[in-house]
Amino acid sequence: MKPHVETLRWVGDRPGYVEMIDQTRLPEERVLIAVKTVDEMRDAIRRLAVRGAPAIGVAAGYGVLLGVQELDELDAANVVGVTQEVAATLAKARPTAVNLFWALDRMVKRAQREMRSGAPGERIVSALFEEARAIHAEDRATCRAIGEHGVTLLKPGMTVLTHCNAGALATGGMGTALAPVYVARERGIEVKVFVDETRPLLQGARLTAWELVQAGVDVTLITDNMAASAMAAGKIDIVLIGSDRIARNGDVCNKIGSYGVALLAHAHGIPFYALAPLSTFDAESASGADIPIEERAPEEVTQGFGRRTAPPQVKVWNPAFDVTPARLVTGIVTEVGILSHPTTAIVEAALERGRIAGQHART
Amino acid sequence: MKPHVETLRWVGDRPGYVEMIDQTRLPEERVLIAVKTVDEMRDAIRRLAVRGAPAIGVAAGYGVLLGVQELDELDAANVVGVTQEVAATLAKARPTAVNLFWALDRMVKRAQREMRSGAPGERIVSALFEEARAIHAEDRATCRAIGEHGVTLLKPGMTVLTHCNAGALATGGMGTALAPVYVARERGIEVKVFVDETRPLLQGARLTAWELVQAGVDVTLITDNMAASAMAAGKIDIVLIGSDRIARNGDVCNKIGSYGVALLAHAHGIPFYALAPLSTFDAESASGADIPIEERAPEEVTQGFGRRTAPPQVKVWNPAFDVTPARLVTGIVTEVGILSHPTTAIVEAALERGRIAGQHART
Repeated sequence: MKPHVETLRWVGDRPGYVEMIDQTRLPEERVLIAVKTVDEMRDAIRRLAVRGAPAIGVAAGYGVLLGVQELDELDAANVVGVTQEVAATLAKARPTAVNLFWALDRMVKRAQREMRSGAPGERIVSALFEEARAIHAEDRATCRAIGEHGVTLLKPGMTVLTHCNAGALATGGMGTALAPVYVARERGIEVKVFVDETRPLLQGARLTAWELVQAGVDVTLITDNMAASAMAAGKIDIVLIGSDRIARNGDVCNKIGSYGVALLAHAHGIPFYALAPLSTFDAESASGADIPIEERAPEEVTQGFGRRTAPPQVKVWNPAFDVTPARLVTGIVTEVGILSHPTTAIVEAALERGRIAGQHART
Repeated sequence: MKPHVETLRWVGDRPGYVEMIDQTRLPEERVLIAVKTVDEMRDAIRRLAVRGAPAIGVAAGYGVLLGVQELDELDAANVVGVTQEVAATLAKARPTAVNLFWALDRMVKRAQREMRSGAPGERIVSALFEEARAIHAEDRATCRAIGEHGVTLLKPGMTVLTHCNAGALATGGMGTALAPVYVARERGIEVKVFVDETRPLLQGARLTAWELVQAGVDVTLITDNMAASAMAAGKIDIVLIGSDRIARNGDVCNKIGSYGVALLAHAHGIPFYALAPLSTFDAESASGADIPIEERAPEEVTQGFGRRTAPPQVKVWNPAFDVTPARLVTGIVTEVGILSHPTTAIVEAALERGRIAGQHART
């Protein structure tokens, strides 16, 4: 059985570097790149060589290491100063990547905490190595926990429909929406996957199809508008998607098209699950109505494939995300368990359980 | 007010030729080509310079003229013989285009009928001119009648969602699904249109968006998976689609994705109409289950834009059409009126009305 792809890893000990799949080269070819400097990491994040919120967080942690790993000779204040500078550089890679800022903040705070407790420069650098590795290890563990809870939803022979990419390529581990698929395979439970290509950016076709093919999973690609027919034909048993943000009442914000899939699943009596770590929950948003939806450039729709496929004068509406109301969500699979038919009370209880269990919330 | 585009027309009298928009050049540029021989017409149909069932029928009728228009000197039997040869050549242009065969058959039968009634060669050629022009005129009249009935569904300020291309570019007139939009504009009723890009072949982006922009209609392009969000945001008041085949019970077969749009419209309480001539009804199909669904090449999905967008090893499911069950169809707009909440009895009555009114059924 082939393992899931490894999106990025730290190579060597100290000094070391990051090796990552260059996702801009997918699906044509698997190119591993060595990222050895802070500037290279900033560029890798900026040009989407690594993408997906959790994967960006892991990359950011390692990115700080690239800037401090040879500072053993410096004193504590200087190490903290460089850590802050490096974090500031990496923070410019993408403007709205919450996990990027969260991971950089965590690294800077660790350095400051060590300095305050009297650690010399060398010890602070060691502590930063611990912290970056912890970010990665926690992400792996979270993915696996989501997979372990999610696999209870799968029976042999089932076919999963997924949308966009919430797989290994989006995380430092086995993904979120795809984690139950990978865990099922470890246990000899054969499941198949249908994946929407996910216009306009085709993450389903380019990334999800690719990583599942690499892992030897039986995967079938469809265009987004074929999902309804696939359901009507009895080809789909369950829908598993990731999430970009979940409101306190269980409304799920995810890649554009997820809401439509949820409605179609509902109409066909097919269960619809969102899979995401507790850090995806936004306690500030009482419902999906509080979540701002980014509208992106028309060119993604009119010339998303390197050539123009629509008349230049046409207007375009290009929301990047949509909100699936909680009533259409059969359950939310998190690292602390499955929240069935989520409500505000259920979500708040889960977040409390997570706090007690020491799960790292993102905010 | 700009008129709708004219897909093709006969230029000159006799001899003359066909001028058509080369649809393979859309949406980049509007190129008019002169089609002057039977072989050129066969190639134009084959390479999709002209497409859409009604438009192909009109092109086929004119295509026969290109082969017989200079045969005035021949005797009747020779004119009929050449007509049959020309029809056989044109019939090879596309394998499953029902309107192509229907129009060619109609031309051949007209020639035979004239010969049987004693017409000389010259008169048969004249009769063929009448017949080809009648095919075009009837198509125009049918489109307009659909538009006149359909416009009763539109009120000022409404926004129509459509899918694929069932507009002027698909017919010899103002289209079917888009006919009410064009009639509304004639009457000063301002309506807007949202159009799904319609993967995999992007007829919505390439053709519908283009022809509506040409006509000065306010049109907004979305990817297929944005339709649900557009509905939830209150942006859509009515769905108007064409149809490739309608079963006797009112089940509507149309471009892949139509069924999904119908489910989404149903979930949002938005009326969903199919617009099609009576010739689209297939009395042989008791329900949609009797309609075979063509599955097309994987490459349309994996490299539909001239470059590969999915891994080579991935499986693909690529049905070209889907079936919307009659229960989701608010009504079917035909040239003899609107069939509200269609059932077998309602469809059969309409087909009977059409027979009495002398509408040309395709089969």
